[in-house]
Amino acid sequence: LSRRGSAGAREAAIPSRLYAPELGAAGSVLELSPEEAHYVARVCRARAGDLAEATDGRGVIARLELVSVGTGVRAEVLSVDQARRERRTWLWCGAPERGRADWLVEKLAELGVERFQPLDCQGEPWAAGEARSRRWNRLAVAALRQSRRAFLMAIGSPLPLEVALETIEPAAALWVGDPAGRPAARGERPASLEVGAIGPSGGFAARDRERLEAAGFVPIALADGRLRTETAALSLASWLALPQRPGVDA
Amino acid sequence: LSRRGSAGAREAAIPSRLYAPELGAAGSVLELSPEEAHYVARVCRARAGDLAEATDGRGVIARLELVSVGTGVRAEVLSVDQARRERRTWLWCGAPERGRADWLVEKLAELGVERFQPLDCQGEPWAAGEARSRRWNRLAVAALRQSRRAFLMAIGSPLPLEVALETIEPAAALWVGDPAGRPAARGERPASLEVGAIGPSGGFAARDRERLEAAGFVPIALADGRLRTETAALSLASWLALPQRPGVDA
Repeated sequence: LSRRGSAGAREAAIPSRLYAPELGAAGSVLELSPEEAHYVARVCRARAGDLAEATDGRGVIARLELVSVGTGVRAEVLSVDQARRERRTWLWCGAPERGRADWLVEKLAELGVERFQPLDCQGEPWAAGEARSRRWNRLAVAALRQSRRAFLMAIGSPLPLEVALETIEPAAALWVGDPAGRPAARGERPASLEVGAIGPSGGFAARDRERLEAAGFVPIALADGRLRTETAALSLASWLALPQRPGVDA
Repeated sequence: LSRRGSAGAREAAIPSRLYAPELGAAGSVLELSPEEAHYVARVCRARAGDLAEATDGRGVIARLELVSVGTGVRAEVLSVDQARRERRTWLWCGAPERGRADWLVEKLAELGVERFQPLDCQGEPWAAGEARSRRWNRLAVAALRQSRRAFLMAIGSPLPLEVALETIEPAAALWVGDPAGRPAARGERPASLEVGAIGPSGGFAARDRERLEAAGFVPIALADGRLRTETAALSLASWLALPQRPGVDA
């Protein structure tokens, strides 16, 4: 028995979209993760009967109604929908200076990047660390909630450029940030996948530049000054996230 | 007597552009600030005879030759040039969530924003603090160096929107980030000044939206999800920093 619309239910009590990787079918009841339960109970001060949205991070969006709110939170799935991904963007990035990666991960996830792929470039590898990848995943989940997205950003383990190049799909549009490149401009039709590559803080080495050119990456200028790695990555991701303009640069 | 080209002088010893607000004319000798001296002597390990570039942050770019490098650093001005500002961008921004402003200031300065204007919006004022404005200025100087710019970003004290609106120049192009706006697209010709406005973390209140609309701000969508204040501000600044494309969106 759905209590949708029951007296006292508040639509806007929970403004962010919850992350529930194990969403069931309509009618099922799920137990929120401790993080989501904390957000619902402590941050939003929601109560039983309130409505929420949740996603499994793989495109399913569910309408929920809270059944019980305490140390744990249980919710009934009222309905589920499958979202379609409107655009697919991969962002490849060499290592920035220390301490500048966390917010990059957060911002790329907010902007809806499908996959963040760290590149291990010559002489400038990413620092190793399992803790970091857990932390990055938490940041990506927080951004998913905040931006009410349906797809969780995938985060790859660092790869050398030549290995990353093997993962590209045939019809992809390929861009590499380069102060000497041409002004950023997309083609008439959006590609099914767009891949943007940014060098490490010292820039791509000559060998990697050749590899990118051979693979068909188009050098584009993002601004009229030198940008730090993480700034260039965010600028490129912002450009790729701009809504399409049919007939102009869509 | 200029020692330009003297044996052992290294062009690339000092990759960033130094900030020297009191640059003199060609032939004069200046004492670098303690911060610049530290960078030159400790970070770059430069030595007397090495060449450098400096700016006063107001468009003057000077070629320098180091005269002495010790606890202090003195340099001779070899030549000076006046840079022309290619584009002028003001970024107005309501208060983001706590702790998210510092990197925003750094990134806006890297992207070449002329003026960062914090907006005190209804119920969401910026936290007060002289220390913060000194810290922000240091971040802007560091970005000036890093991006080799000729103009230091100006940072305004927080203003209510209605006061900020009085500072707009007549021919300016005005943009406000809005998820319900039209896709971002610039007009045929670049305006002499572009102003981008982003609401605080709770969004602009209805009254401020009306004020922006009455002033001629065009609502533009920056991405297909909700963006945090600082992410939206950076996305808008990145878009405004894209090199112009004549005949398409230049």
